Amino acid sequence: MRYLEDFSEGQVFELGEETIRAQEIIDFARRYDAQPFHVDPEAAKKSVYGGLIASGWHTGSLFMGILVRGLIHDVASMGSGGLDELRWLKPVRPNDVLRGKLSVLGVRPSTKHPNRGSLTCLGELFNQKAERVFFVRWSAIIARRP
Amino acid sequence: MRYLEDFSEGQVFELGEETIRAQEIIDFARRYDAQPFHVDPEAAKKSVYGGLIASGWHTGSLFMGILVRGLIHDVASMGSGGLDELRWLKPVRPNDVLRGKLSVLGVRPSTKHPNRGSLTCLGELFNQKAERVFFVRWSAIIARRP
Repeated sequence: MRYLEDFSEGQVFELGEETIRAQEIIDFARRYDAQPFHVDPEAAKKSVYGGLIASGWHTGSLFMGILVRGLIHDVASMGSGGLDELRWLKPVRPNDVLRGKLSVLGVRPSTKHPNRGSLTCLGELFNQKAERVFFVRWSAIIARRP
Repeated sequence: MRYLEDFSEGQVFELGEETIRAQEIIDFARRYDAQPFHVDPEAAKKSVYGGLIASGWHTGSLFMGILVRGLIHDVASMGSGGLDELRWLKPVRPNDVLRGKLSVLGVRPSTKHPNRGSLTCLGELFNQKAERVFFVRWSAIIARRP
C-alpha cells in the first residue's frame, strides 16, 4: 500500500489505456447528459462535432476509472475536496483508445490532521493519435504511513 | 428553444431534484471509481466517511443530468471547454434527495464565432437537509439566435 510518504513532486505514473465504445457513450449520456450530440448519432452528425462524442462527465469518469485501476487501488486514498481545473481539449469519439497519465505536482502533510496530507496532481488523457484530449488538476487526500 | 440572448447575469434557475440510491452509487463506482468507500458498504463503515458515499464523478454527473432535464434540453447548447472549479462539500449518501440550482454569472458573445457565445455558470446541489453538497463553476458554449 502506498502512503503520502511514497509520493514526491515530479513523479509521473503511466496508468494504462482503455477503448471507449459507442454503446457506453450513449448509455452514460442517456442517464447523465442526454444532449443530442451524446445520445443520437444522426443529430450528432449535424452538430458542430460532426458525429457522436462522449459526455465530458463520461470522459472524466473514465479517467478516474483508469486512475483507480492503474494506481489508486494500491494507495491509502481518503477522497478529494474537489477539482481546481478541468479541460476537455478535443472531442472523445467511439473507439478512441484513451491512455492515462498522472503527474505529481506537490505533496503537503496536513497541519490539521497528522494522519493525512494532500497530493496535488495533474491527470491527463491522450488518444490513439497521441493528442491530449483531457486534463484535470486537483488535490487528493492521502493517509500518512501509520 | 433558448439561445444566448435569452440569458442574463443574475438569473437563477431551479432545476428539480432527484433521489440517489445505493445500488446506483455502487454500480457507477464499480465501473468508474472503485474505491472501497464507494463500492463496499462494510469497508465504507470503517472509513472516515462512516458509510457508503457516492463517487464525486457520480455526483457531478447527477448534477449534469438534473441540469439537462431541468434546463438544457431546451437550450441551444454546443458543449463546454471545461470546468473552472468544482467542490465536493459534503458526502452524498444513499437516499439523499439532491436539488439542483443554476445561477448565471456572465454572458459573453464570442468575438471569433459570430454564431455563438459563452455562458459562465454556477451550478449547485443541495440535499434534503438544505446543506450545499456540491458546486461547480464553468462556461458553456451556447448558440446565438439565428
